[in-house]
Formats: sequence, structure tokens, C-alpha cells
Amino acid sequence: MAKAIAKRDFPVWKARRFLEPGPVVLVSSHHRGETDVMTLGWHVVLAFSPSLVGLMISAGNHSHDLIRKSGECVVNLPTTDLTETVIGIGNTTGADIDKFAHFGLTAEPAETVAAPLIAECHASFECRLADDALVASRSFFVFEVVKAHVAPEPEHPETLHYVGEGRFMVSGKVIDRSELFRPEMLV
Amino acid sequence: MAKAIAKRDFPVWKARRFLEPGPVVLVSSHHRGETDVMTLGWHVVLAFSPSLVGLMISAGNHSHDLIRKSGECVVNLPTTDLTETVIGIGNTTGADIDKFAHFGLTAEPAETVAAPLIAECHASFECRLADDALVASRSFFVFEVVKAHVAPEPEHPETLHYVGEGRFMVSGKVIDRSELFRPEMLV
Repeated sequence: MAKAIAKRDFPVWKARRFLEPGPVVLVSSHHRGETDVMTLGWHVVLAFSPSLVGLMISAGNHSHDLIRKSGECVVNLPTTDLTETVIGIGNTTGADIDKFAHFGLTAEPAETVAAPLIAECHASFECRLADDALVASRSFFVFEVVKAHVAPEPEHPETLHYVGEGRFMVSGKVIDRSELFRPEMLV
Repeated sequence: MAKAIAKRDFPVWKARRFLEPGPVVLVSSHHRGETDVMTLGWHVVLAFSPSLVGLMISAGNHSHDLIRKSGECVVNLPTTDLTETVIGIGNTTGADIDKFAHFGLTAEPAETVAAPLIAECHASFECRLADDALVASRSFFVFEVVKAHVAPEPEHPETLHYVGEGRFMVSGKVIDRSELFRPEMLV
């Protein structure tokens, strides 16, 4: 079983460091006593400040209702040691089981939202709904990252990137090409 | 200099295989005799059928105007041998230079849109605007992939995933966990 990972406060505008590379994330939610978590690969960074992210959460997901009604969620970043858990969560529904209990995940209280942090994840981003213009038509939620928690190391954790058909690309080496950037581009 | 890569027709609904893992892409555009290309990491898969993708194209980009006015673009997938080109394109503006000429890229005619394919890229997805509800407020364009061109090999090319501050994560090994999925989940 994966261990809880101690995290520290992290600047919300830097959430892109972990989300822009396109990893699979675990989105936790809570509404009126019910908690759920789902696996998601369909997300996008939309702005630095405010720190905005867009999540496509299909209406077929049990989490969709909890997130729509509460206007909140936590985007958690699992690493490769959680691969089987990530798949299991993606292949089950919170309408049938309590996923936190079933998959042995630890729900930790967030600071600004009712949805829980997942202790076993490398990073957790507390999110509040910022724009619902595309929710009814396309299940696309624009959230503001209002609080970020990140493990101090490793700086670049090994993440999962879904390519479909049961296959994941695992993150590889990191290359530094900052010398090719104009200084003002180095955000 | 990178070589042109021969591509074949590819099912549009499978565009996610290349976009969902979160690579940096090159978005080409054309409007009234002017062609441009930009580097983009802020994109998301939104649906399989129709094949929808969302692109956050900041209004500060020269490409933004061409794409907004034409309602079209091509999303091209560069591999790591184009790293310097990707950075160069991201650090310059089409208002000042012809980026195709400056970076030695080959513009190939697309089939359904006026924006060109980039011959040196592994894959090219012809896109037509499907929903502009968030364009004015957030520069977020919802496109339909109407035609897909993909090189037959390698099946999983080495792609760039931006983490900020001039650093890229390079795609690593691919792991097959399809045996853990319910059959109906294997899309």
C-alpha cells in the first residue's frame, strides 16, 4: 500500500509545473456527507494568476454531481506507485462503493474546501469553481486553484500519462533548456 | 535540420492517444494570406466523437487573431528532435517574422482547412472551431478534429512536456496495464 506523503504550501500560480505536462490526476469531491474520487486525464491550465485550470468531468461520473453541486474539488497528483489504484478508481463508480475505503486512500482535510486531500498523492490543489459557462453544455469546469500542497521532493516525480487502450506513458528525464529562453519567458 | 515525416490518415477519435499525455504542440494557422505557428502546452481533450479538443490561446499571441478570424487551425505534434525549434517558436512572434521560413519548417497543404500541416511533425490534426463560448472571456477555443494525419511509427514518439522555467519533461517508457481494465473501458 502506498504511504502518506508530507506536503508543504506551494505557490498556487506554479500549479502548472505539475499539471501542464499532462499527468493523470485524481479528483476528490465532497457534498453533503458524501465523498468521492475519480481518475481524470482531461484537464488544462488556463491562467497563472488567478491560477485557473479546466477539467472535463463527464456527466456520467458520480463525481460530476458532487462537484457541480458543491462547486469545489481537489486535484491530486498520483505517482507511478499508485498506478493500480489510479486504474481501479477509473474502473469503478462512487455510486457503488466508497472509493477512499475500497482503495485504502487517506482523506485529509483541506484548508479552503470540503473535498479532501489524498494523503498518498505527491501534490494536492484545492479548487473552487470560477466559471460554469461550459458546464451544462460540455461538462467543462473552470476552477481556480486556491491552495496548493506539494511534497518538497522529488522535484519532478514519476507521473502517469494516459494514451488510451490501457497504456500509460511514464514521465521520463527532465531536460533544462532555459538558456534558450528570453529571461521574461522563464515563468 | 529536422526531416519531413510521412504521415497517414488516422481515426480522428483517436487523436487523444497523442494529445491526452500532455505534450507541447505547434499550432499552425492561416488567414487571408498570412500564416503563423505557435507553441502551446495548454490544451485538453474534451470528447471522442465528435473529436473535440480545447486550446487556450492567449489573446497576446499573433496566432490568436488568425485563428479567431479563420475559425481553423492545425495542431501539430513535434518530437524531441524539434526541441530548439519549439522553443524558438515560443520565444518569437509572427508579428515580426515568418516563422515557417525562419525556423525552416515545411508548410504542407491540409485537406479541410487553410492552415498548413507541418511536415516535420509526427502528427497533424486539422481543426475547425466548434464552440466559441469561452473565446472572448478566456481565449479558450473548442475545436473539432476533422482530419488526422499520423506517422505510422514509432507508435509512441518521444514528446516534450513543459514544466515551466525552461525545463521539459521528456516522455518515458510506455507501460501496458490493459489487463487491469474492464473491456468496455479500453478505448
